[in-house]
Amino acid sequence: MRALAAAEVPVFGWNRSEATVEAAHADGFDVYNDLPETLLRAAEEDALIVLGVPVYAVAELLSVIVEYAPQCALTDVVSVKEEVQALVEAAGLGDRFVGSHPMAGNEYSGWQSTDSRLFEGAPWVVMADGDPEVTERVQCMAVTVGAHIVETDPVTHDGAVACISHVPHLVASALATTGVEESIGGGDLALQLAAGSFRDGTRVAGTSPSLVRSMCEGNRRAVLPVLGHMIEELQACYRELWSEGTVADLTARGNAAHAHYKEVKRHTDEPTEPAD
Amino acid sequence: MRALAAAEVPVFGWNRSEATVEAAHADGFDVYNDLPETLLRAAEEDALIVLGVPVYAVAELLSVIVEYAPQCALTDVVSVKEEVQALVEAAGLGDRFVGSHPMAGNEYSGWQSTDSRLFEGAPWVVMADGDPEVTERVQCMAVTVGAHIVETDPVTHDGAVACISHVPHLVASALATTGVEESIGGGDLALQLAAGSFRDGTRVAGTSPSLVRSMCEGNRRAVLPVLGHMIEELQACYRELWSEGTVADLTARGNAAHAHYKEVKRHTDEPTEPAD
Repeated sequence: MRALAAAEVPVFGWNRSEATVEAAHADGFDVYNDLPETLLRAAEEDALIVLGVPVYAVAELLSVIVEYAPQCALTDVVSVKEEVQALVEAAGLGDRFVGSHPMAGNEYSGWQSTDSRLFEGAPWVVMADGDPEVTERVQCMAVTVGAHIVETDPVTHDGAVACISHVPHLVASALATTGVEESIGGGDLALQLAAGSFRDGTRVAGTSPSLVRSMCEGNRRAVLPVLGHMIEELQACYRELWSEGTVADLTARGNAAHAHYKEVKRHTDEPTEPAD
Repeated sequence: MRALAAAEVPVFGWNRSEATVEAAHADGFDVYNDLPETLLRAAEEDALIVLGVPVYAVAELLSVIVEYAPQCALTDVVSVKEEVQALVEAAGLGDRFVGSHPMAGNEYSGWQSTDSRLFEGAPWVVMADGDPEVTERVQCMAVTVGAHIVETDPVTHDGAVACISHVPHLVASALATTGVEESIGGGDLALQLAAGSFRDGTRVAGTSPSLVRSMCEGNRRAVLPVLGHMIEELQACYRELWSEGTVADLTARGNAAHAHYKEVKRHTDEPTEPAD
């Protein structure tokens, strides 16, 4: 919302939290705490409705949209696409819906964490083969805030984000628990010594657990095999270190995979060099 | 070396790579490719010798130090402390040795990756209970480049770094392989979509595999239980997601552990906020 407003796109919003609505109001934004009122205005102005809630809250919201704004163009920015698509179709809103997902975010929550430049240079996934007029409106919104469009289908999207977002969040959580586990050398001295590898490897463990749960639980089908792969890689590494005293295999493959990732990003994105 | 020179401390160095020596020379540094020549000068000037090589190269270097500069004060910046201590004692150099380990670095290698500000604000671990004069010289070096001293013993150090550095490197490698594994949703589309969580979670997979191998293999005794803990956490999460459809336990504990880590860092360090 902040990014759209910064781009001078007319935008108004709804949030279920009164505190968030007050904070946004205080910053001069046009926001409501009353959902029917918001949706009636959306219907009147033929707005593009953007659902930005955890996946578990989508069905309830759709039931209100069906009542107050069933003709509006509809998209979402939820991190799973197959389940949202199914929920939208079950609500009878499939014809005016084109799902999407901007690949940007941070580990903070709430109005004070919004960032008008969040989407600059980020990929914004838009589902292919939807209604052309709705597709155009969704793509236009993405491009307006500085993102670039990647078209794909829900299943491919969900497998991809399991690999590059959902499981990385779980891995960061597991790594964070390791740092406090005194029986294996963790604890306050260890945390005092922690430098970049621990800081960056655990950063997204700071994400709200309810958001991570929503992403991973809503994408369970795709997350499980990726988590299984991660476990197998670490087990193979454990066995190699235990029996042969080396971690040669994992470190070589991990380094090659990382080089390939940097190469792919270089060709598709403005390169974003991480801090050290 | 660059950091010491920037602090106007007289410093000279040795490197086994001719290319590195040439690059350092070109930048105006006093460096040698000939080890005996370097050590004879160290002995003559009563220098503090700082060993900065992978753990597998320590024994060979010590055998040359014994020959040319056995009276010099000696420290090291190797990432494991128990094994280096044992090697130094086996070489008969234990009396003039106080091991140390600066907790700073990046994923790049070679002279062009040196950074005069690398140690600013970083913890520099110095082994407790060593020769007071050598200890003072090592601590003085650390403080001069902007680091702060943390005193501990080799076993505690090695357990801590297994948790907050060595295993995080292996986890980053495993996560990087996940991103390219097409059978589970990885591949070039996934990598194009990758945002901050994947970028930061895999960053240190870009570290030279020989350096990661040296750290982890040299600290095998402490790394194995931490790696085992990491595997158990992910397995428990897999089981919870499979059987109950939730990742509540891991995400709650990971979030609490991360909050504790931030709190500990706040009390011991200048806080370094990561980029989004």
